[in-house]
Amino acid sequence: MRLKLDGYLELSDNLPKEAQGELEAFFEDANEKLFKKGVPRGKESEGAQITKWALKGDRIELQIISGRYVRAHAAIIRLSNALSDFLGSKHHVGVRKTVATDYQMETELEKEPLEPVTMPFTKQLKIEGNKAYISMEEMDESGLKRNYPDRLLRRLEEKIAAQHVSGKAEFTRTIERSKKGLDKYKIKEDPTEMAVKLGWVKEFPGAGIWQIMPPYAALIRAIENMIIDDIAKPLGFQEVILPRLIPLEVEMRKGHLGIANEIIWACPPISRDPKEFEEILDYVEITGTPPVELLQKKLRPPMFGLSYAQCEPFYELYAQEIVDIEELEKNPIKFYDKNGPTWRWEGGGLKGLERLNEFHRIEFVYMAPPKKCIEIRDQVLEKAKKMIDKDLDLEYRIDATTAVYLEHAGITEEKKEEEEFVKTYDLTVILPFETKSRPETELEVSSFHVHTDFYAKRFHFRDKTRKTVYTGCVGIGPSRYAYITLIRHGFNYDDWPPKIKKYIGDKLPEVPKTVTWP
Amino acid sequence: MRLKLDGYLELSDNLPKEAQGELEAFFEDANEKLFKKGVPRGKESEGAQITKWALKGDRIELQIISGRYVRAHAAIIRLSNALSDFLGSKHHVGVRKTVATDYQMETELEKEPLEPVTMPFTKQLKIEGNKAYISMEEMDESGLKRNYPDRLLRRLEEKIAAQHVSGKAEFTRTIERSKKGLDKYKIKEDPTEMAVKLGWVKEFPGAGIWQIMPPYAALIRAIENMIIDDIAKPLGFQEVILPRLIPLEVEMRKGHLGIANEIIWACPPISRDPKEFEEILDYVEITGTPPVELLQKKLRPPMFGLSYAQCEPFYELYAQEIVDIEELEKNPIKFYDKNGPTWRWEGGGLKGLERLNEFHRIEFVYMAPPKKCIEIRDQVLEKAKKMIDKDLDLEYRIDATTAVYLEHAGITEEKKEEEEFVKTYDLTVILPFETKSRPETELEVSSFHVHTDFYAKRFHFRDKTRKTVYTGCVGIGPSRYAYITLIRHGFNYDDWPPKIKKYIGDKLPEVPKTVTWP
Repeated sequence: MRLKLDGYLELSDNLPKEAQGELEAFFEDANEKLFKKGVPRGKESEGAQITKWALKGDRIELQIISGRYVRAHAAIIRLSNALSDFLGSKHHVGVRKTVATDYQMETELEKEPLEPVTMPFTKQLKIEGNKAYISMEEMDESGLKRNYPDRLLRRLEEKIAAQHVSGKAEFTRTIERSKKGLDKYKIKEDPTEMAVKLGWVKEFPGAGIWQIMPPYAALIRAIENMIIDDIAKPLGFQEVILPRLIPLEVEMRKGHLGIANEIIWACPPISRDPKEFEEILDYVEITGTPPVELLQKKLRPPMFGLSYAQCEPFYELYAQEIVDIEELEKNPIKFYDKNGPTWRWEGGGLKGLERLNEFHRIEFVYMAPPKKCIEIRDQVLEKAKKMIDKDLDLEYRIDATTAVYLEHAGITEEKKEEEEFVKTYDLTVILPFETKSRPETELEVSSFHVHTDFYAKRFHFRDKTRKTVYTGCVGIGPSRYAYITLIRHGFNYDDWPPKIKKYIGDKLPEVPKTVTWP
Repeated sequence: MRLKLDGYLELSDNLPKEAQGELEAFFEDANEKLFKKGVPRGKESEGAQITKWALKGDRIELQIISGRYVRAHAAIIRLSNALSDFLGSKHHVGVRKTVATDYQMETELEKEPLEPVTMPFTKQLKIEGNKAYISMEEMDESGLKRNYPDRLLRRLEEKIAAQHVSGKAEFTRTIERSKKGLDKYKIKEDPTEMAVKLGWVKEFPGAGIWQIMPPYAALIRAIENMIIDDIAKPLGFQEVILPRLIPLEVEMRKGHLGIANEIIWACPPISRDPKEFEEILDYVEITGTPPVELLQKKLRPPMFGLSYAQCEPFYELYAQEIVDIEELEKNPIKFYDKNGPTWRWEGGGLKGLERLNEFHRIEFVYMAPPKKCIEIRDQVLEKAKKMIDKDLDLEYRIDATTAVYLEHAGITEEKKEEEEFVKTYDLTVILPFETKSRPETELEVSSFHVHTDFYAKRFHFRDKTRKTVYTGCVGIGPSRYAYITLIRHGFNYDDWPPKIKKYIGDKLPEVPKTVTWP
């Protein structure tokens, strides 16, 4: 690794003539001592050296060259601090600014890229074989102190590693298959059109967002109650209400800025003053159409993401807290949330009830010591499987698959040859037809996760004795469970399973009829 | 009213020489006949006249002057159509463009403005006394056909009328007051700090958005169930699930573009392609902060508002439909929705649990003939009052007040001297302290509305025999009901009313303890 930094220190005042000599001595001393601190014995040649400098008015222009130890961007900060002390006591002059105008980095990469890579904050990025030549944009003190160069190199390695992984297929291994059962399904084609015709749902002017009418709402609520009575309560999960507007910093910690392309973002108005918005209503009243671009100009930058994973607030709840792992062994934290819909941006082409931009899910979240955490996840899986198998009588499959929490953080996991345990199970129901929005004859209805200490680290919570804390989550979606129940048992209430009818009563609620609909 | 339009018609080709004479005759004829159609007898002087014209290449430049009848902008469209027919059959030439380059309008206003008024689409707007002089920006065919000038004049009158109203106090009349009861309240100051200390709620990094932990979640759910069992079900309301992302066109029909300053808007990403968003994660990984402006550039203009009134989708459900008023007399449409939170942008300064940016409400919506609709509203009010009075034992007040549906549409209602019936009742609970976010010692907890046929007209649904169809809505918010229950009955579960404990059980769920929280 070879780093060459050209930059300057801006002083709070001009220095007197005699300072030239003092600086000469100071910089020599820095090369000999200041830049040697922390350099391993025998690696002195890879330390930092000031190779040029010149005092010009209130600026000291300089060049620092380094290898791997005391990297040039760290060296200039170290120098700036020491010089500030020295000049302060001697001449009452401080260092006002520390800037790297040009920073050239040469380094060896772990892997060669398969495709071109781009990076921000760079004037040039050239890769030849496994050698990277990077020329960074001008960087001020904040970038130097917050270590942009090293973070940039780490990110570069990560992006190259991802290129090597994304070629491979997603790792998936089926661990269980139910008996065949498609012949028992009452519905042999996608039920969306029939549901629309009967008025159980109505299209809303927004793809993947539906108006849900009494009979289908009753089915969704029955399933929700079944999930709570048969899974949440027996396993000791307690209800919490998790927010749906997720602030940007929480999204960042969760890793969701890596999947910003799948999230709907929320922008509050620039002001609450109606005067600022008068123009918008003027346009509406005069033109009869919404002035979209004008409205856009009246909004703040995105302040929240609409909840995508539903569990984001759970990790934030414990951010910076210290937990007691022994207490968690006895009483693991187990919550569930059913605070309304969550959202994923699946695009504008959605057609069926199986894949939605706005949908319902009951989210289970838990925190426990590692073994306990895996055990909790497996218990939820077992009960959900029973519901799909015995109560709803569906054909299904369980897969062990790629850890979704890494995907959600935009990180591609390389499959390790020997996993100690499965991080994610998917529960997939088999369908007798191809779904409306994707060419598949199956539907993933739930997934079951153990995150290891991934979120404990990202949200900075820990055990008081620094033992490992695991978290996990499971999403069970009444939207999808209602859809598959309909396919298996049909639109005729008499045919529905007693377990569901128990929640609804003798009669399924009806859709009020108008002259034109349904 | 005097209108003077200068503009041109652009032809698809140059005209032959002889056409000059034909045009002369055509325009004279237009002044005599075409522009006279629809002008009331005796008002001929207020019709339209072409006062100048000239053929220049493929353009006919012209000036039209009119009064109130066949207004100049309507006259030029009429002329353009007729001329297109005439030149088409005679010379195979059509009119390609119809443009008003300059349009001067002089008109008398109903009222004089109290403050300066601005309008879009105008080069100049001058008001002297009750006379308005408006010079409009260049307008193409679409603006002329969609009648921007008349709509602009109407909007101008509206804005001036609003100035005269907004000076007056909001119309409010107290119609009922409960007995005094503050001495019975267990809590004498805002309970937010205590709730935070006990861990019943935790702050989320977003003002007015809270993490709600098991004991407070249990209280909110108990109240929700009480509202459903004691109000919704006995009155025959059925559950529907109304969407929470409201498309811009629905917001417009609802009138919400008039209160855009109070709504949080949702913007999907410009693309679902992760490549487009790579840069965002690069920035996060290198800088450790969310790149807000960069993210903003990667978003589409606002596509949805986050549900503000909760009932927006109900009116859209019946848009363009025809209903049978006789059927509605027997079986009015009565739905309720409890599909998760809704949002109002109250700003970043919220402090207490009483006023929130994200909050819970059960929304009742109904459609019926006028009398029936008022009756339904009054029944819901009666039952809600009973809950506040008998079950929760609070001190309260009921006010008849300004119709909120007009406010929500950004329209200011002038108080009519004789209202036939009250459009909106507010139910307000009296508090023994001043709330955190506003200097008030009371809290409005529900309001009860009849909208007349306001939404039937805006969303274009109607009875098959054109009899009047009314709608109404009531919002009853478990967030606020839980807050006031806490104030009245305190944090000690033993003291809570049996009606609430029935839903929760023997023990109130606890907040799991960590070393540092709660």
